Amino acid sequence: MAVAWSEKASSMEALSLSLSLSPPMSPPVILTQDELKKIAAYKAVEFVESGMVLGLGTGSTAKHAVDRIGELLRQGKLTNIIGIPTSKKTQEQAISLGIPLSDLDSHPTIDLAIDGADEVDPHLNLVKGRGGSLLREKMVEGACKKFVCIVDESKLVKYLGGSGLAMPVEVVPFCWKFTANKLQNLFRDSGCVAKLRNDGKGEPFVTDNGNYIVDLYLKKDIGDLQVASDAILRIAGVVEHGMFLDMATTVIVAGELGITIKNK
Amino acid sequence: MAVAWSEKASSMEALSLSLSLSPPMSPPVILTQDELKKIAAYKAVEFVESGMVLGLGTGSTAKHAVDRIGELLRQGKLTNIIGIPTSKKTQEQAISLGIPLSDLDSHPTIDLAIDGADEVDPHLNLVKGRGGSLLREKMVEGACKKFVCIVDESKLVKYLGGSGLAMPVEVVPFCWKFTANKLQNLFRDSGCVAKLRNDGKGEPFVTDNGNYIVDLYLKKDIGDLQVASDAILRIAGVVEHGMFLDMATTVIVAGELGITIKNK
Repeated sequence: MAVAWSEKASSMEALSLSLSLSPPMSPPVILTQDELKKIAAYKAVEFVESGMVLGLGTGSTAKHAVDRIGELLRQGKLTNIIGIPTSKKTQEQAISLGIPLSDLDSHPTIDLAIDGADEVDPHLNLVKGRGGSLLREKMVEGACKKFVCIVDESKLVKYLGGSGLAMPVEVVPFCWKFTANKLQNLFRDSGCVAKLRNDGKGEPFVTDNGNYIVDLYLKKDIGDLQVASDAILRIAGVVEHGMFLDMATTVIVAGELGITIKNK
Repeated sequence: MAVAWSEKASSMEALSLSLSLSPPMSPPVILTQDELKKIAAYKAVEFVESGMVLGLGTGSTAKHAVDRIGELLRQGKLTNIIGIPTSKKTQEQAISLGIPLSDLDSHPTIDLAIDGADEVDPHLNLVKGRGGSLLREKMVEGACKKFVCIVDESKLVKYLGGSGLAMPVEVVPFCWKFTANKLQNLFRDSGCVAKLRNDGKGEPFVTDNGNYIVDLYLKKDIGDLQVASDAILRIAGVVEHGMFLDMATTVIVAGELGITIKNK
């Protein structure tokens, strides 16, 4: 997706990102979705200070943030950072960038986490996990003092599930069909369809924890999210779901009119 | 543990179990804990009818019930039974006995499950999972029209956790210490101590689902059990816990004064 980026409306911070913006009063520059993700990610990294324990997110937007942290470490502009990766993939990326890593067992309190999201509602509740790392992300981001969520504006929704894309639920492989049926029935009134995620080769997608993902597709609002969350978690066979309720402290949105920062 | 079994107080059903009880008015017969478990198990199997889909429990008490079902099938006294095992161990036992098996995906509704428990409170809430199969047991027994729980009287407690023995929680291996600390803190007011279960050889015990078990030891009542259940399930990293609330429809208790049957 490409959107128009109006320099007039963009923030100074966005300018500092060294993107090749046109001179004032020129026609709007067209930025790709990936460039918007990068803008949000770089903005979030401005919250990082030397000496911090950092939760490192997973996905195409978070990847830019991890790259940027690695760059600032190399340049000596950040020092004494400890990263807590939210997936094996991010762990590999961080290692390749020379970011020192640890885990939640050694660092149960994290200063700041930066991660993307698949949906953001007006109350800063999130859907995450289309990348498949929802459980580790929830563990890490639940242990943070601050959780900065970074998205392009296509991720903003009126209600969770409102994009029509997947709301993921991690389930144990044992009798997953039974669990998927229970999930579908739970949100029957919202027109829910539950589908096992596959790996693109006809096999079930397997999470870092050896589990499956059941994706829920919703036609309507599911109502009180905390009630829905508890109802999902009460189903034996469910490990975790992708709704991150009341967890993001800041959401940075990069859109055609510049950067918007929303705080809790 | 051996207890006195008073024939006078015992039920006719217990007599039908062909245990070698003494003639009337003779001194009480001493039955072992395992004999009491067998009495409860055989009594439960009286609820089984030909044509039923049966949840087959796991553990030393349930093992007697599965043995008995196999025996009645061999004798032709039961026919057309389909068993849904709650663990790999029970699956192996059932196969060796020639009990036809299926799973929850094929049979999402089960007529009757028979299984043991580690604790039973006065409201027929249970603690299960000291055998490590709590998740599959909860999935199967949550799908039952009737769930008959079978115990010897040593399992009766005033409140869940009241035996001082473990209340198990299945957790993902990833950062299990972090999850164990969260669990311990959750029940700090009840003097909770959380310990990783080991396999007796110095390695973590691994469940049929590839997860670990954190055992909670409680000094005091944890209060409202549904509130406690939801609080445990909200911890990312927790897969399931061993409290079976409002699930047992019947509890059969074998004790020194005979069999007691408690119904919901």
